Amino acid sequence: MRIMVINPNTSAAMTTLIGGCARAVAGQGTTVVAVSPSMGPASIESHYDEALAVPGILDEIRNGEPADAYVLACFGDPGLDAAREIARGPVVGIAEAAMRTATYVARSFSVVTTLGRTTGRAQELVDRYGVRAYCRSVRACEVPVLELETDPEAKKRILAECRRAVEQDGAESIVLGCAGMADLCAELSGELGVPVIDGVTAGVTIVEGLVRLGVSTSRVGEYAPPPRKQYQGALEGFAL
Amino acid sequence: MRIMVINPNTSAAMTTLIGGCARAVAGQGTTVVAVSPSMGPASIESHYDEALAVPGILDEIRNGEPADAYVLACFGDPGLDAAREIARGPVVGIAEAAMRTATYVARSFSVVTTLGRTTGRAQELVDRYGVRAYCRSVRACEVPVLELETDPEAKKRILAECRRAVEQDGAESIVLGCAGMADLCAELSGELGVPVIDGVTAGVTIVEGLVRLGVSTSRVGEYAPPPRKQYQGALEGFAL
Amino acid sequence: MRIMVINPNTSAAMTTLIGGCARAVAGQGTTVVAVSPSMGPASIESHYDEALAVPGILDEIRNGEPADAYVLACFGDPGLDAAREIARGPVVGIAEAAMRTATYVARSFSVVTTLGRTTGRAQELVDRYGVRAYCRSVRACEVPVLELETDPEAKKRILAECRRAVEQDGAESIVLGCAGMADLCAELSGELGVPVIDGVTAGVTIVEGLVRLGVSTSRVGEYAPPPRKQYQGALEGFAL
Amino acid sequence: MRIMVINPNTSAAMTTLIGGCARAVAGQGTTVVAVSPSMGPASIESHYDEALAVPGILDEIRNGEPADAYVLACFGDPGLDAAREIARGPVVGIAEAAMRTATYVARSFSVVTTLGRTTGRAQELVDRYGVRAYCRSVRACEVPVLELETDPEAKKRILAECRRAVEQDGAESIVLGCAGMADLCAELSGELGVPVIDGVTAGVTIVEGLVRLGVSTSRVGEYAPPPRKQYQGALEGFAL
Amino acid sequence: MRIMVINPNTSAAMTTLIGGCARAVAGQGTTVVAVSPSMGPASIESHYDEALAVPGILDEIRNGEPADAYVLACFGDPGLDAAREIARGPVVGIAEAAMRTATYVARSFSVVTTLGRTTGRAQELVDRYGVRAYCRSVRACEVPVLELETDPEAKKRILAECRRAVEQDGAESIVLGCAGMADLCAELSGELGVPVIDGVTAGVTIVEGLVRLGVSTSRVGEYAPPPRKQYQGALEGFAL
Amino acid sequence: MRIMVINPNTSAAMTTLIGGCARAVAGQGTTVVAVSPSMGPASIESHYDEALAVPGILDEIRNGEPADAYVLACFGDPGLDAAREIARGPVVGIAEAAMRTATYVARSFSVVTTLGRTTGRAQELVDRYGVRAYCRSVRACEVPVLELETDPEAKKRILAECRRAVEQDGAESIVLGCAGMADLCAELSGELGVPVIDGVTAGVTIVEGLVRLGVSTSRVGEYAPPPRKQYQGALEGFAL
Repeated sequence: MRIMVINPNTSAAMTTLIGGCARAVAGQGTTVVAVSPSMGPASIESHYDEALAVPGILDEIRNGEPADAYVLACFGDPGLDAAREIARGPVVGIAEAAMRTATYVARSFSVVTTLGRTTGRAQELVDRYGVRAYCRSVRACEVPVLELETDPEAKKRILAECRRAVEQDGAESIVLGCAGMADLCAELSGELGVPVIDGVTAGVTIVEGLVRLGVSTSRVGEYAPPPRKQYQGALEGFAL
Repeated sequence: MRIMVINPNTSAAMTTLIGGCARAVAGQGTTVVAVSPSMGPASIESHYDEALAVPGILDEIRNGEPADAYVLACFGDPGLDAAREIARGPVVGIAEAAMRTATYVARSFSVVTTLGRTTGRAQELVDRYGVRAYCRSVRACEVPVLELETDPEAKKRILAECRRAVEQDGAESIVLGCAGMADLCAELSGELGVPVIDGVTAGVTIVEGLVRLGVSTSRVGEYAPPPRKQYQGALEGFAL
Repeated sequence: MRIMVINPNTSAAMTTLIGGCARAVAGQGTTVVAVSPSMGPASIESHYDEALAVPGILDEIRNGEPADAYVLACFGDPGLDAAREIARGPVVGIAEAAMRTATYVARSFSVVTTLGRTTGRAQELVDRYGVRAYCRSVRACEVPVLELETDPEAKKRILAECRRAVEQDGAESIVLGCAGMADLCAELSGELGVPVIDGVTAGVTIVEGLVRLGVSTSRVGEYAPPPRKQYQGALEGFAL
Repeated sequence: MRIMVINPNTSAAMTTLIGGCARAVAGQGTTVVAVSPSMGPASIESHYDEALAVPGILDEIRNGEPADAYVLACFGDPGLDAAREIARGPVVGIAEAAMRTATYVARSFSVVTTLGRTTGRAQELVDRYGVRAYCRSVRACEVPVLELETDPEAKKRILAECRRAVEQDGAESIVLGCAGMADLCAELSGELGVPVIDGVTAGVTIVEGLVRLGVSTSRVGEYAPPPRKQYQGALEGFAL
Repeated sequence: MRIMVINPNTSAAMTTLIGGCARAVAGQGTTVVAVSPSMGPASIESHYDEALAVPGILDEIRNGEPADAYVLACFGDPGLDAAREIARGPVVGIAEAAMRTATYVARSFSVVTTLGRTTGRAQELVDRYGVRAYCRSVRACEVPVLELETDPEAKKRILAECRRAVEQDGAESIVLGCAGMADLCAELSGELGVPVIDGVTAGVTIVEGLVRLGVSTSRVGEYAPPPRKQYQGALEGFAL
Repeated sequence: MRIMVINPNTSAAMTTLIGGCARAVAGQGTTVVAVSPSMGPASIESHYDEALAVPGILDEIRNGEPADAYVLACFGDPGLDAAREIARGPVVGIAEAAMRTATYVARSFSVVTTLGRTTGRAQELVDRYGVRAYCRSVRACEVPVLELETDPEAKKRILAECRRAVEQDGAESIVLGCAGMADLCAELSGELGVPVIDGVTAGVTIVEGLVRLGVSTSRVGEYAPPPRKQYQGALEGFAL
């Protein structure tokens, strides 16, 4: 089984980190390919960034190496519906993976993410994925995505927000709100005494499960293959 | 006052039609500029099309003629959040414009749109815009977007779905689910005996109102200007 | 075009203030008539006041000067459904006008109103108008309606609540919860740095838009003209 | 114990019918006083009628015979909030009484009411009272309120709608949507084989229970006594 | 009329207390029988306890003295659906009884219960019973169930949480979250100045009302009598 | 890794079937143990059956072979919360497993279950698991649980209901509503052309994933280990 994990930003360091975390939980016989698109933003911290990350994701799915399943490794789950329409196998976003996984092990979770300006998108996904009743809060540590690995204070600030979520908001588990935090689960969980869920690793286990169940995206209705048509200008190559 | 109406597909005929409808309702002293992007899909009939229409929309807002307000003339309201982050004036999507306008004149509406595969997106917007309690149904006439003007049966099929919405679903008003239907309001309303709302024209009146109120998109929180950063590859020019 | 703005309380000073604000945003060629009923409470600060303000509103609509559209200038939107059944043109309440307008320019708003005892009604309207996901809080400045213009501290207290809404509740815009605050938008917005929406002015732009769209209240279903019948006693004259 | 049942329309025959049904379920030592206001509509079949029934209701509560508790015997629960602000004892509307009582004996109910135009108000109350998940449908038999007793076909048409609710909508109980149907419970239940709930009788048992519990309307917050103020014109006498 | 009040834990002292409170509100001619099962947990403070209290409850209903109606006197309403399937008369749980009763006398309530770990179940019932919009908070005084009567500080801690609910959360009434608090209503209400509702007494008035209305659990659909079948092992005797 | 799949009814044939399906999707190195309790109902087709299946489930978890994770193989997810409080590893119910898995591969699903009387419980779980927006319908084939394997018409009737769900309700995937249907996924999916999800197999992949992620039930808050206490009578042995 071959799983493609797509880091939708263009940071190679983050792609490496994500790939390593994904491989650590993948089953025997599963190959994880971690990629990042050839076009798009250096990091995703706004609706503008997110919208412009989508063409690169779709390009990887159409033109990248063949895979049996896909994980979209950005917590906004950018382009998820479009990806499902065109991918050969199942596609899972890390926000849905992490939020739904948390509901199996606790009656509540809080999301701890990077910048405050992205909490609105996280809240929107809480509603879309039907986990409003489980979500205690969405908290931001105000560390930019690309400084997660370089800022020596980053881990401390993440931990501090997680602790506030547990102690002040009553969260019984934590969902990490950025693929760049994927390597922190065990350490944070040890400090906090509650389950800490990262969507990259959760997503890998979910798509592995889907492949083993023999289940892929429905080809009927909303996710049916898109009608073919012309594309113009810089996006001409996206015509199906 | 100058309002830019963006038809996110690349059909010049539809842009002309939309521009005419917009001008017909605009107030004295308001100039309507109807444009379509230089890149993107010929029509929007899937999540894939919608995602790939967004770069062209954002490009028009950043690099097109200056305007006081913007109307996004595709019923999926593609790129609405991203557009709000970067536009100089208020931005309204035609789905939100039409659905909210309907709630001022009836306790219920049905959406009548083009292809059945897009009804899921319309339903998602019904939830996002908080009009679930008003929405009786989302119906599709199964006429592709670009055949709305060319198929001699199109108007008849749209009317038939509207009638089913009124008679079978109890809709007290109709929301037209495609910018390409903007010219049909008066005729349909005459046939049906209920208000028929099109989002292009509704959107023009709404953004005119916002400009007259002196109100534009909040620069605080979710719609604050995006952090600057590098963009790679074919999207390099989108760096702010 | 002729718009009737009905101040449902009997304070002439407030009617004058409201009329002035309404005229300031009305388009060229639009006449605004601001009236207050001949019967009813001096101000509306309870369900009791609100219920008893409705006959006067309905009387103005039936027996007042003819108009093309109506704005009900009390934040409880009293008698809105009844008014729609009998009015010749579209009717908009200022709570629905303000709340829905806020959703075009921000992902969140807080309502700042007069007395704490009216926040329950505002919360009920938040649900009715489907903007629960946008509403961060409903805050009261505890200034009675008729002291808004006379209490020299009033503006300061309103500003203080607005600031708490922005800073503590994360509101990205403010909805003013009383017609008597209609003249404060610009000043408050300047102080706060976020959009501040008043329903009187928002309502005027909305009904102007509806008239220009050629759309009025549906005559089918819930808002169809009421069945004729006898009325007894002091309300005898209300028989249709 | 003295319970006032207020029939908000001015039909003496309906008041007599309602009073008789109420007395049949009242406990030993409970006196039921059935009244109808001196002002207002002959029957309530629109938002307009409902709004104009409220002054008469409030007048009965303020100036009628003293009572320990009140039942508002119109399925729109008109003036309920206002009545709670001023009444000496607890006040219950028949829609809330019937809908909540049904939830104790079945996982679902349908409302069967008079005219189709009133189903919107019933749906709104379904939401307000939090019973959306229990409500299968709101059906109208299209018999006007004042013909319930005189139309020989009325009972048959009500029964037919109840049967459709049970057989087609899966309703496990029936809520009767008009005080004028209060005498039909036993007969309909016998025919249908499911519980049939009328709000007048349910309301009497509920307010009796509240009085026995020693519980009345909270005097804190939303239902606190209204601020005193002047009233003008025909409503002058309503000043508290 | 004979009402069985089932205390689902095996504490005889609590059964006596509950029985006394129930009798104090029962009408003339009503006999209250308070029982506790012969099997099950000493108190109910976890999902585990609650699940294992259910067989004893069902055993009382099947094999105990005949009764016209039943009140389940544990705030988790354990086994309510199963009890309705097999009981001869209507069955009400004290959480639903108290929460719904509170909505007749206030626009909001807070639940004050025993241990924090049970607040999740209370929140789940808030949703099931459709009273989310009324519920300001669920607060725990952290007194174990069996210490409610013996801990001299218990009443003080309950009062303190009630006061926080009123002052900090804006609760306009209080719902007591444990049958063991049934005797505290009057005293707490006197101290707090808001209605305080206990589900045992509320439940007694509700089932008395249902019996007087002649209404019992629907035998159609979800609460129809269970299909007969074999039971094995220690539960063999539960075969119907 | 060792996964215990608990069939909560006492049918050995069904336990064998379930075990086989579970093993077919388990990863290399995973041992599946399929068990059924020593006490409880022959099948689960009512709230009564479900409540009485729980002691047997809890007994297996406490006293059965040690396991790293648990799957509860009854579509009502009986005892799920209680099981989580006491189990050594994560516990997943097949309704939550199937419903959430369906959301990864389609925007909508319908549940096809056994008896109509159990659809209410399924609807309740749809709400609890937050998948209301995805659920098109819950349909019953009216085949009793224990006849699924013996009735030669069973498969045909299940297929017929699935087809109605797809064609009439617009379901884009199917969730099978009984563990006894676990062996039908591939065949039904082949016939229908949409994904068909069974909770037993989905549940096995989910708990395997949780174990690989190193995540188990939170020990904080609602799922913390229950307080110790005495149990009486036939359930004495359940004291922790």
